[in-house]
Amino acid sequence: MLDHQLSLTRVFHALADPTRRAIVERLALGEAQVSELAKPLSMSLAAVVQHIQILEQSGVIATRKSGRVRMCRIEPETLRDVETWIAQRRGLWEQRLDRLGEVLAKQTPSAKDTP
Amino acid sequence: MLDHQLSLTRVFHALADPTRRAIVERLALGEAQVSELAKPLSMSLAAVVQHIQILEQSGVIATRKSGRVRMCRIEPETLRDVETWIAQRRGLWEQRLDRLGEVLAKQTPSAKDTP
Repeated sequence: MLDHQLSLTRVFHALADPTRRAIVERLALGEAQVSELAKPLSMSLAAVVQHIQILEQSGVIATRKSGRVRMCRIEPETLRDVETWIAQRRGLWEQRLDRLGEVLAKQTPSAKDTP
Repeated sequence: MLDHQLSLTRVFHALADPTRRAIVERLALGEAQVSELAKPLSMSLAAVVQHIQILEQSGVIATRKSGRVRMCRIEPETLRDVETWIAQRRGLWEQRLDRLGEVLAKQTPSAKDTP
């Protein structure tokens, strides 16, 4: 669970970089080797490995050794937790707007009674 | 729409800070003045204003002048766009896992036929 602030900070920080989001986009299509992730990116393998480490430390992706290669994959649970955090805040705000709308709707007929 | 990379970078960067998330949590309950947002935070008003500016530039919140005070509120559209971005990546990954499960399920009976 991502209920503590440090985890959320790490995940949002991990996703706040276009290269790391490109890695997530590729991994959404399936597990991939580090070298495969590096291929379309115009940077050194060392730089890609650093981005992968930030994603792994945040819990957005997981990696495993398979022989001599490291395989990377999405961690859907982490993404779901972040979605939930955002959706709950948005939901609270939208519910409040709905309630405000109801209050205004109730007030409108009584306004007609006043001279 | 948040379909370009710069916007996503700004939103994730804006949410990657616990103070800015605390401001979003407060605003989820309703519109608030800057001074009201600053009250529970142990920092200068100037620092709070800076956080508010980062949130506003990312599109997570909007502000408006009301007399001599500045009112802040959530921008649900931006939050929804970010939710969608995350949900689509997670969805692709989960669909792929489902397809993999189907392929494996189909392969299992034929395995019994081999001696």
